[in-house]
Amino acid sequence: MKKSLRPIRALVFDVFGTVVDWRGSIAREMQVLAQRKRLSIDADAFADAWRAGYRPAMQRVRSGELPWTRIDDLHRIILESILPQFGLEKLSEAERVELNFVWHRLRPWPDAVRGLKRLKKNFVIATLSNGNVSLLTNMAKAGGLPWDCILSAEVFHHYKPDPEVYRGAADILGLAPHEVMMVAAHKDDLDAAAGAGLTTAFVTRPREFGDQPRKDLKYERRFSANASDFLDLADQLGV
Amino acid sequence: MKKSLRPIRALVFDVFGTVVDWRGSIAREMQVLAQRKRLSIDADAFADAWRAGYRPAMQRVRSGELPWTRIDDLHRIILESILPQFGLEKLSEAERVELNFVWHRLRPWPDAVRGLKRLKKNFVIATLSNGNVSLLTNMAKAGGLPWDCILSAEVFHHYKPDPEVYRGAADILGLAPHEVMMVAAHKDDLDAAAGAGLTTAFVTRPREFGDQPRKDLKYERRFSANASDFLDLADQLGV
Repeated sequence: MKKSLRPIRALVFDVFGTVVDWRGSIAREMQVLAQRKRLSIDADAFADAWRAGYRPAMQRVRSGELPWTRIDDLHRIILESILPQFGLEKLSEAERVELNFVWHRLRPWPDAVRGLKRLKKNFVIATLSNGNVSLLTNMAKAGGLPWDCILSAEVFHHYKPDPEVYRGAADILGLAPHEVMMVAAHKDDLDAAAGAGLTTAFVTRPREFGDQPRKDLKYERRFSANASDFLDLADQLGV
Repeated sequence: MKKSLRPIRALVFDVFGTVVDWRGSIAREMQVLAQRKRLSIDADAFADAWRAGYRPAMQRVRSGELPWTRIDDLHRIILESILPQFGLEKLSEAERVELNFVWHRLRPWPDAVRGLKRLKKNFVIATLSNGNVSLLTNMAKAGGLPWDCILSAEVFHHYKPDPEVYRGAADILGLAPHEVMMVAAHKDDLDAAAGAGLTTAFVTRPREFGDQPRKDLKYERRFSANASDFLDLADQLGV
């Protein structure tokens, strides 16, 4: 273990893309739905369109244009806006609710549960996601994610990358910021965490966007750790 | 299962006294400390004195006399006030910090872990305690309590029995109040939960105050369930 990693007490994890495969999970459910409805839908494109609305929607909350709105409700707003372009405007209210809850059922990456179980032995492991508490709780139950604690932007009423989220996580865990390691597959998340004083670990998730070359997978010296998955991270942290 | 219990989706638990034996845990640590210090201390009386300061301290927050203050800090204030009467005024700062964290190490009642594991199969199980998030997280890790989610007064900035805590728990779990069952060994907690619309389960903990006849253990028809421990509750809920 690198000396700089010694004082780590807790690991907090970005979730969408870092712990779970949002794109593959949504595409698979959409394929099933399309078959049932006898519709021809590009399920990958549907997942990408839904996710594309995510940052702009949060930005409306971060800027103060919208009052605090949980991700479940933002996902629903985005869903309503994209249903017509995929020929899904006839879905019933119950079907829309059910589809919106796919985010509560996203599947973990293959190494995630095993890696988290190892990391849990030596560290407090918690989510630190923009997903709301019930989404993260239901996802953990469905996927067997062994969190010690569910932390969410919802608890702090700020969305990442606002510094209040990272500082709030350290504070609510009773730790100094540097004792908390932010684990994420996205460099902007890690840079914001570092700006708030947290330690950082970059984990590459090359399949987050499927075959699309949309991801920056380069290891960076400015992060305290760079890992290929959670098992590699556990190795590097000596657990 | 009683018909009225059918729609329950989540169980939220009072912790001090209901899940863990605060008095026995504190008394045992105090006995060890007293031996090491070669002091004669009534360890049970020490535990009782510390706990006796709890409600008045929270009341100062609830009334607005104190700003939001987490239980770790309230415990420390109370500890400072009782150390002299037990001949412990010479404890160092490090020893005081360590002693104050005994609340993070409280031991579960013998049935608690087994009962929670059963209940977790069919329900979301979460804390709903006045203890702060790090206290509850560390306690769960030390005692093997398999929570799906740590909910605390700290998240809502209100202490039980303020209705904001109970309503906040249902809201953050994405459920209607009646879909959430408050489980507690204290009737005032359950009555406040019922006032906020939650379903209620009374669990008797006859040893909470040791041999002292300080507890009202009578089952009440106004609660949706009355149980002798978490295993009995699991039986009644059909899991």
